Amino acid sequence: MGVLGSYRREDLPHDLVAGLVLGIVTIPQAIAYAFLAGLPAQAGLYACLAPMVIYAALGSSKQLVVGPVAIAALMVAAAVGEHAAAYSDQYLAIVTVLSLQVGILLWVLRAMQLGGIVNLLSHPVISGFVNAAAILIIVSQLGAFTGIDVPTENGAAAQLAALAGSLGTLDGAALALGLASLVVLILVARYAPAIVRAKSTDHPIARAGPVLVAVVATAAVVVMGLDVETVGFVPAGLPVVTIPWVDPALWWDLAPNALLIGLVAYVESYTVGTTLAARRKERLDSHRELVALGAANIGAAFSGAYPVAGSFTRSSVNVAAGGRTPVSVLSCAAVILVTLLWLTPAFEHLPHAALAAIVIASVWGLIDFRAIREHWRFYRPDVVTHFATLAGVLLAGVEAGLVLGVSVSVVQFMRGSSRPHIAVVGRLGDSTHFRNVERYEVRTWPHLVAARVDESLYFANANQVEGRLWALCGEGRAETQHLVLVMTAVNFIDTTGLEMLHRLNDRLDRAGVALHLCEAKGPVRDQLAHIAPADWLTGDVFGTTDEAFNALT
Amino acid sequence: MGVLGSYRREDLPHDLVAGLVLGIVTIPQAIAYAFLAGLPAQAGLYACLAPMVIYAALGSSKQLVVGPVAIAALMVAAAVGEHAAAYSDQYLAIVTVLSLQVGILLWVLRAMQLGGIVNLLSHPVISGFVNAAAILIIVSQLGAFTGIDVPTENGAAAQLAALAGSLGTLDGAALALGLASLVVLILVARYAPAIVRAKSTDHPIARAGPVLVAVVATAAVVVMGLDVETVGFVPAGLPVVTIPWVDPALWWDLAPNALLIGLVAYVESYTVGTTLAARRKERLDSHRELVALGAANIGAAFSGAYPVAGSFTRSSVNVAAGGRTPVSVLSCAAVILVTLLWLTPAFEHLPHAALAAIVIASVWGLIDFRAIREHWRFYRPDVVTHFATLAGVLLAGVEAGLVLGVSVSVVQFMRGSSRPHIAVVGRLGDSTHFRNVERYEVRTWPHLVAARVDESLYFANANQVEGRLWALCGEGRAETQHLVLVMTAVNFIDTTGLEMLHRLNDRLDRAGVALHLCEAKGPVRDQLAHIAPADWLTGDVFGTTDEAFNALT
Repeated sequence: MGVLGSYRREDLPHDLVAGLVLGIVTIPQAIAYAFLAGLPAQAGLYACLAPMVIYAALGSSKQLVVGPVAIAALMVAAAVGEHAAAYSDQYLAIVTVLSLQVGILLWVLRAMQLGGIVNLLSHPVISGFVNAAAILIIVSQLGAFTGIDVPTENGAAAQLAALAGSLGTLDGAALALGLASLVVLILVARYAPAIVRAKSTDHPIARAGPVLVAVVATAAVVVMGLDVETVGFVPAGLPVVTIPWVDPALWWDLAPNALLIGLVAYVESYTVGTTLAARRKERLDSHRELVALGAANIGAAFSGAYPVAGSFTRSSVNVAAGGRTPVSVLSCAAVILVTLLWLTPAFEHLPHAALAAIVIASVWGLIDFRAIREHWRFYRPDVVTHFATLAGVLLAGVEAGLVLGVSVSVVQFMRGSSRPHIAVVGRLGDSTHFRNVERYEVRTWPHLVAARVDESLYFANANQVEGRLWALCGEGRAETQHLVLVMTAVNFIDTTGLEMLHRLNDRLDRAGVALHLCEAKGPVRDQLAHIAPADWLTGDVFGTTDEAFNALT
Repeated sequence: MGVLGSYRREDLPHDLVAGLVLGIVTIPQAIAYAFLAGLPAQAGLYACLAPMVIYAALGSSKQLVVGPVAIAALMVAAAVGEHAAAYSDQYLAIVTVLSLQVGILLWVLRAMQLGGIVNLLSHPVISGFVNAAAILIIVSQLGAFTGIDVPTENGAAAQLAALAGSLGTLDGAALALGLASLVVLILVARYAPAIVRAKSTDHPIARAGPVLVAVVATAAVVVMGLDVETVGFVPAGLPVVTIPWVDPALWWDLAPNALLIGLVAYVESYTVGTTLAARRKERLDSHRELVALGAANIGAAFSGAYPVAGSFTRSSVNVAAGGRTPVSVLSCAAVILVTLLWLTPAFEHLPHAALAAIVIASVWGLIDFRAIREHWRFYRPDVVTHFATLAGVLLAGVEAGLVLGVSVSVVQFMRGSSRPHIAVVGRLGDSTHFRNVERYEVRTWPHLVAARVDESLYFANANQVEGRLWALCGEGRAETQHLVLVMTAVNFIDTTGLEMLHRLNDRLDRAGVALHLCEAKGPVRDQLAHIAPADWLTGDVFGTTDEAFNALT
């Protein structure tokens, strides 16, 4: 406990206040996300005990709050919904297995140094995924929000269709409660900081909406005797330590889900943690984060909770409320503990419609399409990746969408590098600089073609490059006598690329054109040293383009 | 028919002779490969009629012989064996569906300009696949070769285990016939050209072994009354035009098999065709080849044959026997036609053991591990790809192995580009050239770090590159004041890479280090123009490294 050993006394009051505020903000969110995950209310609160404390002890971020989050809840519902009915005992058992798997997989990634796999979740995949997940979550809450009783469907369109088909069962009281809650949440978020004359819109009062809504909606149900669906009985007491139930076939089935949930949870936590750390000029240790988040999830598995991640909302509240060290998170856990021991009866009449409004208001802020216009101008393939992920998640579900997004980004990368940019270069005046003939006034010679291939020579582009270089030499029918391959951007050559060079060399040779190489970088020069180009290349290997032009013009 | 319109009379005798020789070589091979594919003898001969003639009419190679080949036969057996019993009517029906799908998919690839997908079958994938397929084919023939009756198993190990378990049923007569056939095949291939005083070992007499073996083995069975498995009754006459039987679920199941068979068939045909064309300084048109091979396979579907490809053996015989135009292939088809009409009774007593020997001798020559040592020195990841493909095919089957090989090569490529080579460069004397400080005696300045990242800045490497550049600046604690990013090898920046540059810029800024860019190539300069680096970059964008060093030292 290095954190506690060096704890400064003056931080304590700040941490205690922050912990209390954080606890109050956390409780309604935790219950709401539990229902989103298809779990009873207490499972959400359990996710704020062991996992939150374990991360506080092991993590490298001092302010990150780990616990239930909306996107992980959605992914849990999608993964476990296939195997059991929501709210059933079997469902809960499968969820604990899933939490254990998420934790173990994060540890395995750390042990095998495979943490880099999260880099496959590129910027556009993440943003497309978050947008779609937020939409999907909102759609999933419309049933509770309107009192319409529909089963959960995979995909937003199917869910909306199911809702539309049951419109007749709409419950006016639920809808009224839901709408009122939503209005309160929006008003509090927007105007509360101004009313208390807070200096910043980040003031914790902006997050007071859910608590206010929970209290007022519960009071409304009790006082007005409304007949709407409510949370019902929540057992008091601590989570019983559960041993995740093991069925090898189920483990195998759940492993891909666990991997995706683990990766998303890690990316979410790491991103939130890095953002917070940057403000304090601190750095997160990515390895330690994998271990800490893995441990937090294993803690979730043994305490009847569901997979956890770093929460952006609650971490922001922690910072804004003055939390300075992980002690604020420990104080928050104490608040949750008190709630679980003595306050659970207070949730009995908390209506589902209000919880749905809390979820909808929370994830509404995640939706962000503003960056896309910039992506369109800067790197268009990323727009395709964004919308592919978005469409995949909305139409085929969270996991299929995520896999589709990663596949599309890899395919686009491969496709791009399989059709590389090739520039014919000429000498810039009398300088030793060489530039693209299409962009600069440069000097060229008709018997010499110098082509810069802007990509490594490898299997996906070898045929393309061969065909285009051959075309640049007039397919052997022009007055070209020398083709100089400028390799500034060639980072490696694989055996398919080497075979292509041999073939091109022979073909050019028959057409009376000599093939020269230049500007090979260190790693490529090491490769060339193994294949004795002097023995088969019709031309020479020059150090620089300048040397090549000096020798050949 | 441009080919026939411009036909030169003096080519006719050469083409007729080549066609006759080709026909004689083809017949035993076609029957042997039919059994390898799990089909009756006549299906092999049918594959030499419509498909061969259609390719001769449409293809861009004048000498390529399209028809039954060993590897496609193996892939057919693997694909269809899951759905029906070999030699059954249903099996044949499924094979015709598969042929149709192969043809249609090749056309679709052409129509959608997706022919480039074959580039995924890199050099090491192909060589590993061919080696493994040859071994698998040899193992698959050991049953017929020894007279042991075993079912076909998926994977070489399983097949060998099944053989070992049935060793007791070994048939001495079959084994003797098989061994004798193999000895004859080897002797003919090795010494026949010398005996007839041929100028080259490519002389068609070297390919006379199979015919000799077929005749002698049949005679042995008839004269000595050997009780071994033989071809049996082969119906005389032309193939009946069949309409491939359609069951949507089956089409869907077979589609991935058809795609893989189509790709392998195309790569095989194109490679053989290109090799032949190069000798005559001709070129193949890859688009026309896709169409012609697709048409040949559709022809196979409607004439009761199985998927076809260009045969290296028979194309070589065609060339060596003097074939000059596709008319030699048409003559060969005439020989097959005559055989089908009047000579089928001759095959009744042709023993399976001799056919197995013919297959084993044919594919033995495909096994080639010599290139691997060179790959090891030139580009090691290709050795991994080769053996991954080989092991995959031998242990999990042809298709799983092929998919594994492609996956391994893509993963290795992504992995390589996710951990790019980064060189710190310095000025070479007083020149305008800059080189890696670890490889050259160059001038450096303690307040200036110039780093050349040898890869595009994109999602898979953004975090890596950020961490390493930050480390090069002493993590902000060194005397570095300027970091110059030399982008000669940066071919594009995606939005994840751009975000990384923003983050790195801010981080360096807080540490008092300015970030500069230089040597951006045309396409990257176009990208940078959209994001106004002057507005946020703490340093400057220089044209060349020279300019950057001049300004900063």
